[in-house]
Amino acid sequence: MSNIKIFCPATIANLNCGFDVMGLCLETIGDEMIFRKSPTKGIKITKITGAELPFEIDKNVAGVAALAILNNYEKDFNPVSFGIEIEIHKKIKTGSGIGSSAASAAGAVFGVNEILGKPYSKSELVHFAMKGEAIASGSEHADNVTPCLLGGFTLVRGYDPLDIIKIESPNELFAVVLHPHIEIKTSDARAVLEPMISLKNAIKQWGNLGGLIAGLYMKDYEIISRSLEDVIIEPLRKGLIPNFDKVKNSALKNGALGAGISGAGPSIFALCKGSSIAKNVAKAMENTYLKTNIPFDIHISKVNDEGVKII
Amino acid sequence: MSNIKIFCPATIANLNCGFDVMGLCLETIGDEMIFRKSPTKGIKITKITGAELPFEIDKNVAGVAALAILNNYEKDFNPVSFGIEIEIHKKIKTGSGIGSSAASAAGAVFGVNEILGKPYSKSELVHFAMKGEAIASGSEHADNVTPCLLGGFTLVRGYDPLDIIKIESPNELFAVVLHPHIEIKTSDARAVLEPMISLKNAIKQWGNLGGLIAGLYMKDYEIISRSLEDVIIEPLRKGLIPNFDKVKNSALKNGALGAGISGAGPSIFALCKGSSIAKNVAKAMENTYLKTNIPFDIHISKVNDEGVKII
Repeated sequence: MSNIKIFCPATIANLNCGFDVMGLCLETIGDEMIFRKSPTKGIKITKITGAELPFEIDKNVAGVAALAILNNYEKDFNPVSFGIEIEIHKKIKTGSGIGSSAASAAGAVFGVNEILGKPYSKSELVHFAMKGEAIASGSEHADNVTPCLLGGFTLVRGYDPLDIIKIESPNELFAVVLHPHIEIKTSDARAVLEPMISLKNAIKQWGNLGGLIAGLYMKDYEIISRSLEDVIIEPLRKGLIPNFDKVKNSALKNGALGAGISGAGPSIFALCKGSSIAKNVAKAMENTYLKTNIPFDIHISKVNDEGVKII
Repeated sequence: MSNIKIFCPATIANLNCGFDVMGLCLETIGDEMIFRKSPTKGIKITKITGAELPFEIDKNVAGVAALAILNNYEKDFNPVSFGIEIEIHKKIKTGSGIGSSAASAAGAVFGVNEILGKPYSKSELVHFAMKGEAIASGSEHADNVTPCLLGGFTLVRGYDPLDIIKIESPNELFAVVLHPHIEIKTSDARAVLEPMISLKNAIKQWGNLGGLIAGLYMKDYEIISRSLEDVIIEPLRKGLIPNFDKVKNSALKNGALGAGISGAGPSIFALCKGSSIAKNVAKAMENTYLKTNIPFDIHISKVNDEGVKII
């Protein structure tokens, strides 16, 4: 393939009980990227719309990720005789907490892999995408790039070695995401975390994570609902998000299975069974936030089982 | 039914990454109990073999559990016009770390439930069995009584409300249990635990628990194997069990998927795919322990998917 356009979905990481390990993929929110073979060797970013991002390859999340896979390919297989031009059309707002940088990183490795003739599986691409993520967040992590690449619900079991697992899930799950237009600095979101936690709370959290994964496999919405609880991170971080409790409560009152902070915030997510409940929940969350003076946008999306794809 | 004999299986709690929440049920080790209707109302323990245990109902794990279900039945349904006599034949050594008291508690509620005409499901029985467990351990917990009652692998998601989940698992899993004949006081096993743990290790642990549950559903032995790791409790408790590391390493070297402390110890368990690997692993663990002067016994058992049953 010498010319492709792809969709790079937004993602929700953590999912309350799965801090740093769980994530899910969205369907209605995502960036678009275009990849073209070019006669000039190397990676070149030719166009960026929707965000102010650097064109220098080594400073751009997509550039770094694209270079990581290209260099690795040349080491594993053959030198590449052509170059690849990339256009990045951002639709996911940076700093929204729904995997904006992960979409760029995952999109870049997916696109380059297609142009190279698919030498790597989607799972193998996670490793390269993490190199791009590191530019955005300062550390290589996989909790957004994994669901963006694989789709559905994913678990990062561990990093040594990198071990990613796609979790089977029921097909009626919808997410609502409310993105308040405020900035939470990554440093602030990290500073509120406690390096030590109580064993008692940790047991609650891993009981819930076990419940969430079992509930997804069993397609048992009640278990999923009871498991979507965060006794460790949410109490520390929710203060950074104005009206978090009100939005969460309005989601739960209107039938959401669970609600919480998407990634490091500020977006607030709710998980729902079926689109009609999701619409009611979105309306309730929206009404709650309209009472503040903070601008926001809101999205409803089915959980996207496919992940990044050619369009 | 007016006269039944039951088998009350031994269980392994924790399973490395699932401290206080996971457990599995064994097939070849377990107590036997006999239940008889009698004209004299109430619960009476008429015979105990295999262990020195009190006959007083309120001091005996099985007695307390039996009374809990009987009293509850009379409150929920009708007064009972007969009594129930219980014989307890202990085969599981007390203090071995493979759910000896849980077998008595679970057996008692299962047997009484049968005599009463099965008014409660096995899942509902967990609550009553926990009352018996509290006599033995000082607190109501469910990580051994749940697998004893339900069989297979089980997760206690949480206690408020009590939420127990049977985890689907592949049918080729075997456990090896080596029980060194030493006593670890519950107070000592608890005293070594740290009330605070690092968030970093907690994330590793819940990643592994998620991996274990996903691996069981996926019947993926490699994921199960990589997930059977305990970065929190084992490092603190293993010093209480002489030669723990040597036994664990001999199990892993001989093909075990994982190995660790059974419950609060002193028993050491290994999980294996298939009976022939289990036999090799048992032999290796045995050879390692023969070099010590500590007497021990060793068991090989398929994971028992049925749990407590009438024989």
